[in-house]
Amino acid sequence: MSNLEALKKRLADVNALSSAAAMMDWDQQTFMPRGGAGARAQHLGILGRMAHETFTADETRTLLDKSQSEAQTEDDKALLRVVARDLDLSTKIPSALVEKKLRLAAIAHEKWIEARAKDDFPSFASTLEQMFDIARQEAEYLGYQDHVYDALTDLYEEGATKAGWDAMFGAIRQPLVDLVKRIKESPVKPDDGFLYGKWDESVQATFTQYLAKEIGFDFNRGRQDTAPHPFCGGWSVNDVRLTTRFKEYLGSAVFGTLHEAGHGMYEQGSPQEWDLTPLAGGVSLGVHESQSRTWENIVGRSKPFWKRYLPQLRAMFPDLPELDLTTFYRAINKVQPSFIRVEADEVTYNLHVMVRFEVECAILTGELKVQDLPDFWNSKYSEYLGVTPPNDSLGCLQDVHWSQASIGYFPTYSMGNLLSYQIWECLVRDLGDVDALMEDGNFEPVLGWLQEKVYRAGRKYKPAELMTMVTGRPLDPQPYLRNITQKYEGIYGLAPAVV
Amino acid sequence: MSNLEALKKRLADVNALSSAAAMMDWDQQTFMPRGGAGARAQHLGILGRMAHETFTADETRTLLDKSQSEAQTEDDKALLRVVARDLDLSTKIPSALVEKKLRLAAIAHEKWIEARAKDDFPSFASTLEQMFDIARQEAEYLGYQDHVYDALTDLYEEGATKAGWDAMFGAIRQPLVDLVKRIKESPVKPDDGFLYGKWDESVQATFTQYLAKEIGFDFNRGRQDTAPHPFCGGWSVNDVRLTTRFKEYLGSAVFGTLHEAGHGMYEQGSPQEWDLTPLAGGVSLGVHESQSRTWENIVGRSKPFWKRYLPQLRAMFPDLPELDLTTFYRAINKVQPSFIRVEADEVTYNLHVMVRFEVECAILTGELKVQDLPDFWNSKYSEYLGVTPPNDSLGCLQDVHWSQASIGYFPTYSMGNLLSYQIWECLVRDLGDVDALMEDGNFEPVLGWLQEKVYRAGRKYKPAELMTMVTGRPLDPQPYLRNITQKYEGIYGLAPAVV
Repeated sequence: MSNLEALKKRLADVNALSSAAAMMDWDQQTFMPRGGAGARAQHLGILGRMAHETFTADETRTLLDKSQSEAQTEDDKALLRVVARDLDLSTKIPSALVEKKLRLAAIAHEKWIEARAKDDFPSFASTLEQMFDIARQEAEYLGYQDHVYDALTDLYEEGATKAGWDAMFGAIRQPLVDLVKRIKESPVKPDDGFLYGKWDESVQATFTQYLAKEIGFDFNRGRQDTAPHPFCGGWSVNDVRLTTRFKEYLGSAVFGTLHEAGHGMYEQGSPQEWDLTPLAGGVSLGVHESQSRTWENIVGRSKPFWKRYLPQLRAMFPDLPELDLTTFYRAINKVQPSFIRVEADEVTYNLHVMVRFEVECAILTGELKVQDLPDFWNSKYSEYLGVTPPNDSLGCLQDVHWSQASIGYFPTYSMGNLLSYQIWECLVRDLGDVDALMEDGNFEPVLGWLQEKVYRAGRKYKPAELMTMVTGRPLDPQPYLRNITQKYEGIYGLAPAVV
Repeated sequence: MSNLEALKKRLADVNALSSAAAMMDWDQQTFMPRGGAGARAQHLGILGRMAHETFTADETRTLLDKSQSEAQTEDDKALLRVVARDLDLSTKIPSALVEKKLRLAAIAHEKWIEARAKDDFPSFASTLEQMFDIARQEAEYLGYQDHVYDALTDLYEEGATKAGWDAMFGAIRQPLVDLVKRIKESPVKPDDGFLYGKWDESVQATFTQYLAKEIGFDFNRGRQDTAPHPFCGGWSVNDVRLTTRFKEYLGSAVFGTLHEAGHGMYEQGSPQEWDLTPLAGGVSLGVHESQSRTWENIVGRSKPFWKRYLPQLRAMFPDLPELDLTTFYRAINKVQPSFIRVEADEVTYNLHVMVRFEVECAILTGELKVQDLPDFWNSKYSEYLGVTPPNDSLGCLQDVHWSQASIGYFPTYSMGNLLSYQIWECLVRDLGDVDALMEDGNFEPVLGWLQEKVYRAGRKYKPAELMTMVTGRPLDPQPYLRNITQKYEGIYGLAPAVV
């Protein structure tokens, strides 16, 4: 066996352990009976340790080094690059710190749930402070050029830096604030009240699975279940698990499904020959999010899409009132500055993200003390969104991320929003009348284009390389600004902004 | 850390790997999309190999040896005995063969499903042949005194041999054939036609879960899903997974659920402190089956049970005709030589098992070629049951076992049938009027007795020891023969047999 083959065998072992943990996590969020939690914690802990031990063993590094001269194909060279990056990141942080972080995360998650339930930020503050301390230590071990944030955000988005995120947010901050203001002043006030009701859950399941199938999610290689917090999981190009949830707002299941199906189709789109290897899957969180947002927002909140599917929706939910396409289109695109990020519309969403990004940077550098977070948070919401959370549960306690030790993650959501339109403009240039395709329910050309340009690349290229290959340039906020300005000027009957 | 503690830590690692494999297996049979089979095969192969490697590493043997002097409690001594047996069996089989078997099993399962669906035995034949080849190799590695079968069947039922099974079947063969003959000649012809129909699946699910809960299956520590071939899985005392299936015969889901719930309650009944250790779970397949059959047949096909639940059944299935308890009782105990083992009545069931036992012995010794299996199968059915399967889906393709590499397993079903009555006679002696308890839907005393005598023992004692502790003697066919003779003489109005 060559060193390269031995390395691949070793990676397959790591993949089996990670896949087992992924399935246990999926099961915990979908089907596990309550009593199973204790056993699940033990099993996940052990499998996680084993995966980490197997991957970071000296033998992996040795095989990786010796494989360099054996890699002949483009794919093998890409594999070695990806493994080298993963291995560097995994070995730079001492296992003692990893363990400390995991232990803290377990406690933090419980404390966060309790603090949020009781609206008691002070009870969570010292835990949050420890979490940021650990993140700071992690960053020092990982190393960085300019800013402590660079080390952390690179874990989620290879090559991303604070300076890059600053530029991104700097480009969209004022235009968004202005657009929100103009929308607020518009006499058009879309009503989405008719989308709230007691909708039959099995009908919602049937309809959302129908939509996911229509856009191209392959149910022979995946499925959909319910979970309290929707996510897309999986452990193979051929076994991708979507989840959704059913709430009073009918859009929750519909757009949640289109979102997760977007993630899912990206996962299903990796080449078969990369299945179960580090080359399969999404290249970064930002690019992944661009695909979920493409199918959720650009396709799923478009007029042509609902020109086709509104009749089906009304047939399946007879409690919906008589309504025309424009009324429905306005309702699902209602812009409303609010407190909760995950329920935000596409115009205000990035403003939510900005607040979190600024919080993370300020706490990491020490400019902001954790105890002052609620005031900082609320003043930023007031500044960017014009609303002030009435309490911390609807404010700085709302997200799960920090309690899970995910710091440096949030900006990838905004990157996804921007990139989705940047890629979409190229797609439209190539495909022509995409609206007509959507009205026909013919998503094959759209999915095929995305598969060819994005999904089939898996993790082969760096995110920035891939972006340039697909769109001809690095991340560019203009397509997003251009498209949402045009879309919401239309919906809200606004005169084009004076430039 | 003492050697014993180090051993337990090591066993916890093995348990995590085995549990992951168990969950992947459960998922494959319940929810996995068809496309996931390839990845599943690889993952199960690797996890199985890792569990085997971790368990059979020299370090385990060393720790086991050094732990002997440290084990002070009864439980720790039992643990070391169980681990020693498992280790002896596992070290004899090379890891490569284990992985080969597991990979083949994952593929074989898919092939079996397809072959059964298409009634295409030839498409499954070469896979089946490979499976028997592997079993033969396994037997040679394990070693045996008298017959190749001994090595394989001992894996499922510690201490069992082909000679022992021959004796067991020898004791019941003629009495059963005679009883079937007398029943056939009886003028009483129970009609169970009313149990066939298009029953709403979600109502079936609700009703069967209700029954499982009534008899004592704890849904906080388990759940029920559907699978093509019902089974009971799980990976913790607190996370036990039942499956059932819905067919035109209403009894399929009802009695299948009671059966699997019997297995499940045995699993749930191990002491909490043994959870995730080798001491938890059932002691052997035969003893396990005795419990599923107890709840399915002795409880679930009794008159007192349905005196309580027939009204509920009729309320939930309004398409059922008006019927009295005796008519219903006769219908669910109709004796009818048929093709499908899992749907067989308790009188003919063991004849189905006998066919499989003979098939396995004959293929293993080479007396029977796999390609000739359908003919052999059909002629045996004709000989023992007086019926000839019209196709292989209703014949030799009906069981999942061989596709799962379970060879040497079937006779434990018959052992379970016999042992269920042997244990039940002791239970009735202790509890008195069990019929009255069942009529009241009060299963706590019955479940409590079984928990105390059988379930709480986990794997602490050898099966034969446990049997003697509970019933005062080794496996004895007489209670089974006595009880079913009496029961079916009653149902069919037969004069007591001349002895």
